[in-house]
Amino acid sequence: MARLQPVLVAGAWREAVEPAGSLQARSPVTGEAIGEPYPVSSRREVEEAVAAACAVAQRFATAEPGRIAGFLEAYASGIERRAADLVALAHLETALPVSPRLRDVELPRTTGQLRQAARAVREWSWAHPVIDTAAGLRSAYGPLGKPVVVFGPNNFPFAFNAIAGSDFASAIAARNPVIAKVHPLHPGTSRLLGTIAHEALLAAGLPGAAIQLLYHVEPDSAALLVGQAAIGGVGFTGGRAGGLVLKALADAAGVPFYAEMSSINPVFLLEGALAERGAALAQEFFASCTMGSGQFCTSPGVLVVPRSAAGERFVAEAAARFDAAPVQVLFSADGKRHLEAAVETLRAEGAELRAGAADLDRPGYWVQPKLLEVDAERFLEAPRALQAEAFGPVGLIVRVADTAQALAVAEAFEGNLTATLYRAADGGDDAAAAALMPRLRVRVGRLIVDRMPTGVAVSPAQNHGGPYPSTSHPGFTSVGMPGAIRRFAGLHSYDNVPDALLPPVLRDANPGDVWRLVDGRWTTADVGGGG
Amino acid sequence: MARLQPVLVAGAWREAVEPAGSLQARSPVTGEAIGEPYPVSSRREVEEAVAAACAVAQRFATAEPGRIAGFLEAYASGIERRAADLVALAHLETALPVSPRLRDVELPRTTGQLRQAARAVREWSWAHPVIDTAAGLRSAYGPLGKPVVVFGPNNFPFAFNAIAGSDFASAIAARNPVIAKVHPLHPGTSRLLGTIAHEALLAAGLPGAAIQLLYHVEPDSAALLVGQAAIGGVGFTGGRAGGLVLKALADAAGVPFYAEMSSINPVFLLEGALAERGAALAQEFFASCTMGSGQFCTSPGVLVVPRSAAGERFVAEAAARFDAAPVQVLFSADGKRHLEAAVETLRAEGAELRAGAADLDRPGYWVQPKLLEVDAERFLEAPRALQAEAFGPVGLIVRVADTAQALAVAEAFEGNLTATLYRAADGGDDAAAAALMPRLRVRVGRLIVDRMPTGVAVSPAQNHGGPYPSTSHPGFTSVGMPGAIRRFAGLHSYDNVPDALLPPVLRDANPGDVWRLVDGRWTTADVGGGG
Repeated sequence: MARLQPVLVAGAWREAVEPAGSLQARSPVTGEAIGEPYPVSSRREVEEAVAAACAVAQRFATAEPGRIAGFLEAYASGIERRAADLVALAHLETALPVSPRLRDVELPRTTGQLRQAARAVREWSWAHPVIDTAAGLRSAYGPLGKPVVVFGPNNFPFAFNAIAGSDFASAIAARNPVIAKVHPLHPGTSRLLGTIAHEALLAAGLPGAAIQLLYHVEPDSAALLVGQAAIGGVGFTGGRAGGLVLKALADAAGVPFYAEMSSINPVFLLEGALAERGAALAQEFFASCTMGSGQFCTSPGVLVVPRSAAGERFVAEAAARFDAAPVQVLFSADGKRHLEAAVETLRAEGAELRAGAADLDRPGYWVQPKLLEVDAERFLEAPRALQAEAFGPVGLIVRVADTAQALAVAEAFEGNLTATLYRAADGGDDAAAAALMPRLRVRVGRLIVDRMPTGVAVSPAQNHGGPYPSTSHPGFTSVGMPGAIRRFAGLHSYDNVPDALLPPVLRDANPGDVWRLVDGRWTTADVGGGG
Repeated sequence: MARLQPVLVAGAWREAVEPAGSLQARSPVTGEAIGEPYPVSSRREVEEAVAAACAVAQRFATAEPGRIAGFLEAYASGIERRAADLVALAHLETALPVSPRLRDVELPRTTGQLRQAARAVREWSWAHPVIDTAAGLRSAYGPLGKPVVVFGPNNFPFAFNAIAGSDFASAIAARNPVIAKVHPLHPGTSRLLGTIAHEALLAAGLPGAAIQLLYHVEPDSAALLVGQAAIGGVGFTGGRAGGLVLKALADAAGVPFYAEMSSINPVFLLEGALAERGAALAQEFFASCTMGSGQFCTSPGVLVVPRSAAGERFVAEAAARFDAAPVQVLFSADGKRHLEAAVETLRAEGAELRAGAADLDRPGYWVQPKLLEVDAERFLEAPRALQAEAFGPVGLIVRVADTAQALAVAEAFEGNLTATLYRAADGGDDAAAAALMPRLRVRVGRLIVDRMPTGVAVSPAQNHGGPYPSTSHPGFTSVGMPGAIRRFAGLHSYDNVPDALLPPVLRDANPGDVWRLVDGRWTTADVGGGG
């Protein structure tokens, strides 16, 4: 076997210490091993990474913000310079389309996100400075003084990569060192990103151990990464089973744990909308549900459709599209197994397969997009089982007799990232929409009207989060600056502290067009004067 | 035995259902039982309370904000009308002084806090509205749609009472029903507060089950209050042991749990400050450490003092004050036992008793204020044991040889609510202060200069929180509107939602001088126009 690729630990790329095993990417298209072999890190290596991160945490917490922002911007530029290599690698390892997905959407989204984080650092928007001159109190968010560990998912090799995505950018913007546990399905992409990141870090004059990268660890080492007081916080994007195991370890140690774990993203198609534009909606749903082979956290997994003539036409139309679709490729053999198991669960619970029966038996991880259907009565009898997430191009249609039944279905949903309503342009559905919205509102992070949930803009008004079990906390988003940054920050209050001993953002003199809440008013002015 | 007092469950004061036992307050001064007997609620009663809260949660979440604010204001006025009765009851049950403490400080603080919560509701400041017109996204914090359970502590019968304090006001302001598990040491005070609250709630036309009150529950019922998905969030103020048991239950169910659990609030007296005003500092420390018999979360429990002539004079002066002080009364026999055990732990670990040996043997829960001392060398050998919290009028002085040793001691502290620095007015300590501040900054919620930590202003710039284990999350405060409210809120994003279907706070027309972050600028104007 070839030499194992190096890990980024304690400030440098180095050979793995006593590796616990090795891994290799596989082509989703053929199932064959590709690329170099990478180490599974030993417990000792994990210990060294944590110790190295802790050793630089204090220094990184007091780094000059301009240097942090400069690093994030230089990293974004470095990604753009190596875009062709990154896209080629990611395409090989994930089978996601080069264009538009990887080259024209996900890569620009990733660099844009790094630059938005840099801007939040330069503008101090993430710090949310508050000044109460009468009480002599001032507060702002600040670094945790401890490393943040990020676990990246399989489905976004750039935009959610543990070494380049929103969790990474957020933790760095709040001036915390990051230990990136990248996803082992795309080690080559991650390694190249890590190389670009580390070069930019050193060029910015920041401590070399502020960014570290591991490809994989054994289960008993995971406790070191999340379950000890030395860790300041954890960002996790992935499946619910793994997320809950890590969450329990973090909870027991008092470590804030931000997990995005699962979501079936219910979509309600109201009667008027179906009557008005049912065929267009069938196409819109099909496109959203099968985009990226349906491997999106916000893929529309459940559709609530009236048991009416327009509803029946919609289902027939959608089923035809699913049946006519070409087979799609998933990321891994495990992913295919999980998808098949979830479909089996749904069928065992009473859902009927309406389209997509024709699976191919060929190498690689291919599946036919599938559409299932179940009556609301049955759904309400087994709501938990029929909310099993099928991660891939699979949709479950729940047929409802009337609005009252749609409301009952809405109330049966667990916490989700999103819920969506499609309504008639003429306002004919607005009574039903008004009844549904408050019920859905408290169950999801993002409530959408007349648009599929798969687009997740990087915006300060975004919430890519939701109530448990979709994520671990209903008040935080993992996407959108500056909110995402505050997950990895402490609230720092200063009581009777003289101006010279305050951080610049809280001094009387505004450090430069920073929005601050001063005595109840948002302003960019100095305290007690002009500006 | 007299008839058990009623509980407030399912919208009305009613007889306890199958009570699991009874409790009675005791006079801290004499140790004798006083007042009426109160029920320990059965599992069935807890189940009924949770079911009743869940049944009104949706309706309460969509209540008109003016009605919520009106209720909070009417409740504050009701407390003021019954102030004499409340103060007399609380004095009997806690032995806290009528004046200034209960009548002139804690009661006005409580009503002020309720009114600040009402103001945050009227001004929508807690909702933090964000509008991104280009992306078509808008977000604001909103209700959880589930009940919040509040556990109140023994040490503030008004200001942190589960039925009247900051957690209560915060959860109601975010439009969540509250189940108040008040502290069994002051049941009479809590019952009267509950009566005033419930009258105000009904008068405001809000659902009667939106506020419920239990005095005590058995341990196995606690899981129902914190450890099931029906609960939206929990606020807890109390001891670490109990807090961690409840936290584990909440964590396992994915319920956000905000606990304030313990803190020894280190105070660093720098050399120049001692030389300049050592005697005044001894008095200031003594007063803060013994205020309310030292039963404050922010009581200065550890002092770091140089091993210098000025330091020695300070310690002698402080010791003399502790020895000369009258005995002080604690809340309970348990509290006295815990305090004595903590002092024993500190002594067993090498701390020497410098003052307060002369305990009295008389009825009630009396103790002599105590001052202990230990060398930094010993402290650094057993930092965990020597950070045992002695909840009461007890201080531990850690003697340091130089600034380097003070820095090492600073780095040994666990997460605390506060840390304090006293420095020379002439700037002579500023190098030491500058070295200490970043080390303390990441370990506490509030960093104080030249002021004792026992004052906790209700201010938007306050952080009455801190890193674990002082609380359960480093980014939230339990005191200070509007921040405290956001603990019990979900982040609600709206994607492509037409103006008429948005909540008023996010519509184009500003609902009235609300500060909103519109396209990166804080403004009270309408979107896309004047205002």
